[in-house]
Amino acid sequence: SSECSGDQPLYWKATHPTLAPAHLQDLPGFTRSVFKRDHALITPESHVFGPLPDWINTLGAYLISPAIGAHFTMYLANMQDGSKSALPPKDVERFRAIEDYHPDLIVGSTDKQPLLETPGEVFQLRKLLPTSAAYDFNIHIMDFQPGEYLNVKEVHYNQHGLLLLEGQGIYRLGDSWYPVQAGDTIWMAPFVPQWYAALGKTKTRYLLYKDVNRNPLI
Amino acid sequence: SSECSGDQPLYWKATHPTLAPAHLQDLPGFTRSVFKRDHALITPESHVFGPLPDWINTLGAYLISPAIGAHFTMYLANMQDGSKSALPPKDVERFRAIEDYHPDLIVGSTDKQPLLETPGEVFQLRKLLPTSAAYDFNIHIMDFQPGEYLNVKEVHYNQHGLLLLEGQGIYRLGDSWYPVQAGDTIWMAPFVPQWYAALGKTKTRYLLYKDVNRNPLI
Amino acid sequence: SSECSGDQPLYWKATHPTLAPAHLQDLPGFTRSVFKRDHALITPESHVFGPLPDWINTLGAYLISPAIGAHFTMYLANMQDGSKSALPPKDVERFRAIEDYHPDLIVGSTDKQPLLETPGEVFQLRKLLPTSAAYDFNIHIMDFQPGEYLNVKEVHYNQHGLLLLEGQGIYRLGDSWYPVQAGDTIWMAPFVPQWYAALGKTKTRYLLYKDVNRNPLI
Amino acid sequence: SSECSGDQPLYWKATHPTLAPAHLQDLPGFTRSVFKRDHALITPESHVFGPLPDWINTLGAYLISPAIGAHFTMYLANMQDGSKSALPPKDVERFRAIEDYHPDLIVGSTDKQPLLETPGEVFQLRKLLPTSAAYDFNIHIMDFQPGEYLNVKEVHYNQHGLLLLEGQGIYRLGDSWYPVQAGDTIWMAPFVPQWYAALGKTKTRYLLYKDVNRNPLI
Amino acid sequence: SSECSGDQPLYWKATHPTLAPAHLQDLPGFTRSVFKRDHALITPESHVFGPLPDWINTLGAYLISPAIGAHFTMYLANMQDGSKSALPPKDVERFRAIEDYHPDLIVGSTDKQPLLETPGEVFQLRKLLPTSAAYDFNIHIMDFQPGEYLNVKEVHYNQHGLLLLEGQGIYRLGDSWYPVQAGDTIWMAPFVPQWYAALGKTKTRYLLYKDVNRNPLI
Amino acid sequence: SSECSGDQPLYWKATHPTLAPAHLQDLPGFTRSVFKRDHALITPESHVFGPLPDWINTLGAYLISPAIGAHFTMYLANMQDGSKSALPPKDVERFRAIEDYHPDLIVGSTDKQPLLETPGEVFQLRKLLPTSAAYDFNIHIMDFQPGEYLNVKEVHYNQHGLLLLEGQGIYRLGDSWYPVQAGDTIWMAPFVPQWYAALGKTKTRYLLYKDVNRNPLI
Amino acid sequence: SSECSGDQPLYWKATHPTLAPAHLQDLPGFTRSVFKRDHALITPESHVFGPLPDWINTLGAYLISPAIGAHFTMYLANMQDGSKSALPPKDVERFRAIEDYHPDLIVGSTDKQPLLETPGEVFQLRKLLPTSAAYDFNIHIMDFQPGEYLNVKEVHYNQHGLLLLEGQGIYRLGDSWYPVQAGDTIWMAPFVPQWYAALGKTKTRYLLYKDVNRNPLI
Amino acid sequence: SSECSGDQPLYWKATHPTLAPAHLQDLPGFTRSVFKRDHALITPESHVFGPLPDWINTLGAYLISPAIGAHFTMYLANMQDGSKSALPPKDVERFRAIEDYHPDLIVGSTDKQPLLETPGEVFQLRKLLPTSAAYDFNIHIMDFQPGEYLNVKEVHYNQHGLLLLEGQGIYRLGDSWYPVQAGDTIWMAPFVPQWYAALGKTKTRYLLYKDVNRNPLI
Ligand SMILES: [Mn+2]
Ligand SMILES: [Mn+2]
Ligand SMILES: [Mn+2]
Ligand SMILES: [Mn+2]
Ligand SMILES: [Mn+2]
Ligand SMILES: [Mn+2]
Ligand SMILES: [Mn+2]
Ligand SMILES: [Mn+2]
Repeated sequence: SSECSGDQPLYWKATHPTLAPAHLQDLPGFTRSVFKRDHALITPESHVFGPLPDWINTLGAYLISPAIGAHFTMYLANMQDGSKSALPPKDVERFRAIEDYHPDLIVGSTDKQPLLETPGEVFQLRKLLPTSAAYDFNIHIMDFQPGEYLNVKEVHYNQHGLLLLEGQGIYRLGDSWYPVQAGDTIWMAPFVPQWYAALGKTKTRYLLYKDVNRNPLI
Repeated sequence: SSECSGDQPLYWKATHPTLAPAHLQDLPGFTRSVFKRDHALITPESHVFGPLPDWINTLGAYLISPAIGAHFTMYLANMQDGSKSALPPKDVERFRAIEDYHPDLIVGSTDKQPLLETPGEVFQLRKLLPTSAAYDFNIHIMDFQPGEYLNVKEVHYNQHGLLLLEGQGIYRLGDSWYPVQAGDTIWMAPFVPQWYAALGKTKTRYLLYKDVNRNPLI
Repeated sequence: SSECSGDQPLYWKATHPTLAPAHLQDLPGFTRSVFKRDHALITPESHVFGPLPDWINTLGAYLISPAIGAHFTMYLANMQDGSKSALPPKDVERFRAIEDYHPDLIVGSTDKQPLLETPGEVFQLRKLLPTSAAYDFNIHIMDFQPGEYLNVKEVHYNQHGLLLLEGQGIYRLGDSWYPVQAGDTIWMAPFVPQWYAALGKTKTRYLLYKDVNRNPLI
Repeated sequence: SSECSGDQPLYWKATHPTLAPAHLQDLPGFTRSVFKRDHALITPESHVFGPLPDWINTLGAYLISPAIGAHFTMYLANMQDGSKSALPPKDVERFRAIEDYHPDLIVGSTDKQPLLETPGEVFQLRKLLPTSAAYDFNIHIMDFQPGEYLNVKEVHYNQHGLLLLEGQGIYRLGDSWYPVQAGDTIWMAPFVPQWYAALGKTKTRYLLYKDVNRNPLI
Repeated sequence: SSECSGDQPLYWKATHPTLAPAHLQDLPGFTRSVFKRDHALITPESHVFGPLPDWINTLGAYLISPAIGAHFTMYLANMQDGSKSALPPKDVERFRAIEDYHPDLIVGSTDKQPLLETPGEVFQLRKLLPTSAAYDFNIHIMDFQPGEYLNVKEVHYNQHGLLLLEGQGIYRLGDSWYPVQAGDTIWMAPFVPQWYAALGKTKTRYLLYKDVNRNPLI
Repeated sequence: SSECSGDQPLYWKATHPTLAPAHLQDLPGFTRSVFKRDHALITPESHVFGPLPDWINTLGAYLISPAIGAHFTMYLANMQDGSKSALPPKDVERFRAIEDYHPDLIVGSTDKQPLLETPGEVFQLRKLLPTSAAYDFNIHIMDFQPGEYLNVKEVHYNQHGLLLLEGQGIYRLGDSWYPVQAGDTIWMAPFVPQWYAALGKTKTRYLLYKDVNRNPLI
Repeated sequence: SSECSGDQPLYWKATHPTLAPAHLQDLPGFTRSVFKRDHALITPESHVFGPLPDWINTLGAYLISPAIGAHFTMYLANMQDGSKSALPPKDVERFRAIEDYHPDLIVGSTDKQPLLETPGEVFQLRKLLPTSAAYDFNIHIMDFQPGEYLNVKEVHYNQHGLLLLEGQGIYRLGDSWYPVQAGDTIWMAPFVPQWYAALGKTKTRYLLYKDVNRNPLI
Repeated sequence: SSECSGDQPLYWKATHPTLAPAHLQDLPGFTRSVFKRDHALITPESHVFGPLPDWINTLGAYLISPAIGAHFTMYLANMQDGSKSALPPKDVERFRAIEDYHPDLIVGSTDKQPLLETPGEVFQLRKLLPTSAAYDFNIHIMDFQPGEYLNVKEVHYNQHGLLLLEGQGIYRLGDSWYPVQAGDTIWMAPFVPQWYAALGKTKTRYLLYKDVNRNPLI
């Protein structure tokens, strides 16, 4: 993977979680990963890495894809010196969230996005894509201070792919409650009741895929 | 939202339930909403409101859509002065149940519909659309006096979207039993065993979408 | 309900079960019907009767249809004097099992079908359709003496619709065990583990839809 | 048992339920009886009758006893001409609710008991024993009109034995919901969340054992 | 154990079941044994044999004891030439069912016991102890022909220890259904709903401990 | 109950929860109360009030008692002008936590108790009884800031009765997760895995009974 | 079936398991087969054999097919002298693993395939098809020594059909744990958490279908 | 805790597990501990340490006690320089397993105990107490090589307290399967079906309390 230096990469706890696969090596068969009809929690000890087709020197792990019932795909790509990505297939939109990569290729930066209104909610929201009708999905960055939680226990037709970048808390999905920390991934099918509460000493930040600007009748 | 005046809007308890989201604000993560393979109960603290595309000044919350497995969509639209609806897309049928809106636009009224026969059952039935073959769905208004319940514990190929307008009772869906009150919404997939009993001091009235006049082989 | 005369209709217990809906009228919400992901048990108190489209004076209740995941439809049709069926839609195959109807219209009769081999099993088997490749389904009539049961706890890609005509026993479907009697209907999705044992004083006879002569790759 | 004459015995539906054991004879293994850690529902097809020791010509069925965790015993005694009860053992209190027996032996009658206050609740309450400290249990007779239900979803240290004498409804015990009708018996251990709603066309009346005037510390 | 000769021991399938522990040796961790709050099924691959204290050259396996909640103990004793039993402790009653042992020691024999009445039931019943008040338990031998089953789905204060001697069938205990064959043992706590159906080609015979002639108030 | 004045009583949200029984009156049978083998959550809509024996003009509701498996009793006593408590029975220790009562009778006050060490934990701890060996239980007052949670997911032989006085959060008990708010009561049997996280805008404070200074071998 | 000779066929325990259907014949309804939403275990007593269409004198049993949600089909074909296979339909790829068949027809052999790298894992891996892009699936042969287990508790978009050829162990699928032995078959849907541990005295070898070289976006 | 030096303490992984509480600090509420009716798994993040009464400078954590239903108590005692134990109460037997303590106080040593016979099983067994009748319990030390597992899936009246000293594997208790590693503790009530398999690269060694030489009738 990568080396720890004095300068921590951005979201370093997502790639170096306090509970890493190495800590589970003496616990045969133990996993926090869960796959239910309307949601999934995919934790690091379940990641399967293989060469990404057409990419150079890059291992990737697929976390969400249409095979889970989603209309999008979410994967991790581990890149190092000498790695090189391939273009997405024709007619496929791709969004890449990059940590600690060659600054030349940065198109935007989370902190430079403006904070947006969240009526009735307390979390801080930024969006990484324009909201105009040409864009049929967006990537939300959501920040919670410890103790903050969602007011609405959401049920909606949009689906989500979520990656915790910082912090920890409890995610409720349907009737299940999951302790989560940075590095955890969640799939939320349409209509699964969903809710989050941030805990700990530092803020939670997570990245959230959401389909928008689509006709719910289809 | 709105103000309570001496003149209660029609079905005012559906928008002002005795158990409103505000009463749950000190109960982190608590929801009555349930999403199972063959049914869902969606209660007010789960409603997600956003601008309805193409409508003016109107927030809407989608409760049921094809993403849940339905072949229809059901949503709430909160309209005020200055709000204006948009036309449905081409080839899409839409039925609107309106409470307390500008009387000029009223096409029909529940109480003016005749009571229909319900052989073997005791509830009172009205239909808001014609039953001729050109209509492939109908909206039923069903009334139960306290203590009344369905005789048949129905299993059928039709699907339902239900909104409780008045009263309260118990809905049985599959193996689950749900206390329900005005403002609650239910999705019933084809073949889910379903049953209702009305309780309390006042009658139950609920609105029910049902697909009709279709060939079950498709 | 009905009158008992000396001449019982064929399979009279299927239409006059010992446990009929009328016996459950003081048990609000009680039903034996169950609907799971890979099977369903539909019992008489769940039947919903309505006019069959294009038929004359005939009420029908749909028990299985593509909406349950099946590629066929199974329904009951209650016919009396003056009733008349309609032709099936174009390209739709239909099989009708008739009890106690005008003998002029009988195409075949169960007892006249030869007994077929059931290697490794003890039940008696008759098929009501030819087995040649032109027929892509068949209707099996299976007889078990009390105490007899299936040797194989079947898992296969074929799907089934079953109607118990006589007798009683226990049906195992997946992890669930169901007491069943004449008049009960079962839907079995592909691959649900399935098994039956006959009990009581008289033989079990049931009718079973099964898809055959199809390419499992499709 | 008893004979049906023009004059129905008091609570005749409790001994002649709409769903009697005879209706279940073709359903092998089927029972509505449930036995959980903190409650039980015992329905007629589960009653085991045997001669009551020391009684003359009387068959009895035990429904609740210390073996279930109760500190009392509840049983049915079927008496006819020639039957004779025995005295209870020394130091054992016994209350007998009698239907349709020799009027000479009647000590009291339900309808002659005064209605008592039920603050916060709507049901009608009578008690069959004095409430003075010398009595450490009481027998409540509770009446509900259809549609009425308990306001408090009770959790308390008292235990209960209940017999439904008339009517029908839904009993909630812990997380389970049970359709119940006359003739059903319920055991409620201390602290089981409990609630009832009456349904149907006629009132519910049930008899309820309750321990009172005891020190909860013991 | 014992040797198979031309002359099968009585109930030889109980000691040589078709599904013996040896057949499970390649299935790590697999067992049919189940231990629930109100019942247990103990199958041969779970038997733990050790020397019976004070007995000579005899290995025994305890199946039921007060540690399970019972007021009796049930164990298997494997005796061979040179084995010798010890007397039971003072104040302990012991009943021994013996297969294929030295005929000199036989006190009684099952087949010599008279058949007893079983009103409302079809099985054949013999009792191995006198029924007089001095005896506070009995050992029942119950025979079912294939297809026969209990009419009452019993709930009672008596407890049971059961050993299947011959045949096979389904035992229902609470909400669970168990395929059982000769050699299987069942513990039934007071009040567990219980029911049995015999299947196969040969009759079922089982031995059943039951407490009798005791005051249920204790 | 009591009146709301400008001066809020101490812990006023415990007696006036945001989700009070009155808000559930249109939801028949709904309760948040749960009773499991090793824990219970008792919420206000389940409280059963009756006159406390020997007290004057005081209604009480018992929440925990030996009948739940506890070796202590916990109850609420609603006192007003004219109310008067009775002495506890001989050999019974009683601790009373009083809100808003006649200051003459105050023996101590929470805020005057010193903060105690909680090595490895972040919550603030005060004890309301001396810790010397003569006292075999204590009453802890535990404070959590929003976002704080227990580090140890405790399993121990001590039992607990807990009352939330202020704030809200999530309590995990065994495999269950409960949203809780002021006014909720919890029973924790020995050895139930237990954990708490505080959420919201204000701190959590709860009162906790704990047995101490006892020999765990008994 | 077949005869046991000195020369054991390759993987003879897969066709002659220690727990064969014959050992379950006295256990009515008993099966180890399980069919869940995201996986299935199909064990020998569930195999349904019928003539394979277009094959000569060959009985086959289908274990996995698109009807289970797979995009492939897996079946057993029992061939003897005089048997002859048919060609697969046009556009269908077929891989055949053959035991003990006419050596003339052998295209390849497992032991001749090279061992491949398994970074981070300890099992031995061979692939039976080329890995080039023209091949969109592969058949893996995986060997584990007793005590060895997978390091990653995999979650991925690929689906699997697995047949145990030798050995035994525990397979974890989702939240379920299964003892497995030679002859058992497993279906793994995309994203089911999966893990294996080998136990016993001899190595585990299993055959695994896996889709490769496909675009996960489809 | 303690320091890691070149010389590892005996069973050092039991006090320094690969999955230690510190690794779970960012996972709020997460625990592997489970407490069921008939067994418990207690893992390090659940240990509650407090001063052991009468001991000097020693913190202890109780893992099993009569409050769990056991007739023994099992606890950890962390001793350092200056620590001193107290004598057990009168009439209490105590066994102490010591790691890395002052060699003067060693009464015996595991490796010096002879290996004992384990007919029908493959694990290695040593007992740390004499087996004579004066001793009513024993402490077993059981060793398994990776891949080895118990042949009998035990059900017996003895109870167990278990501490894993080395290695890892899967423990089956009732219907539950648990990955376990050194440092984990298990409570097994009488009659819980129990089984173990060792996995990994090094042997499993665990310590097991077992009651022996007692009359099972009590
Ligand atoms: Mn959302
Ligand atoms: Mn309907
Ligand atoms: Mn079949
Ligand atoms: Mn009560
Ligand atoms: Mn019995
Ligand atoms: Mn605690
Ligand atoms: Mn895989
Ligand atoms: Mn053991």
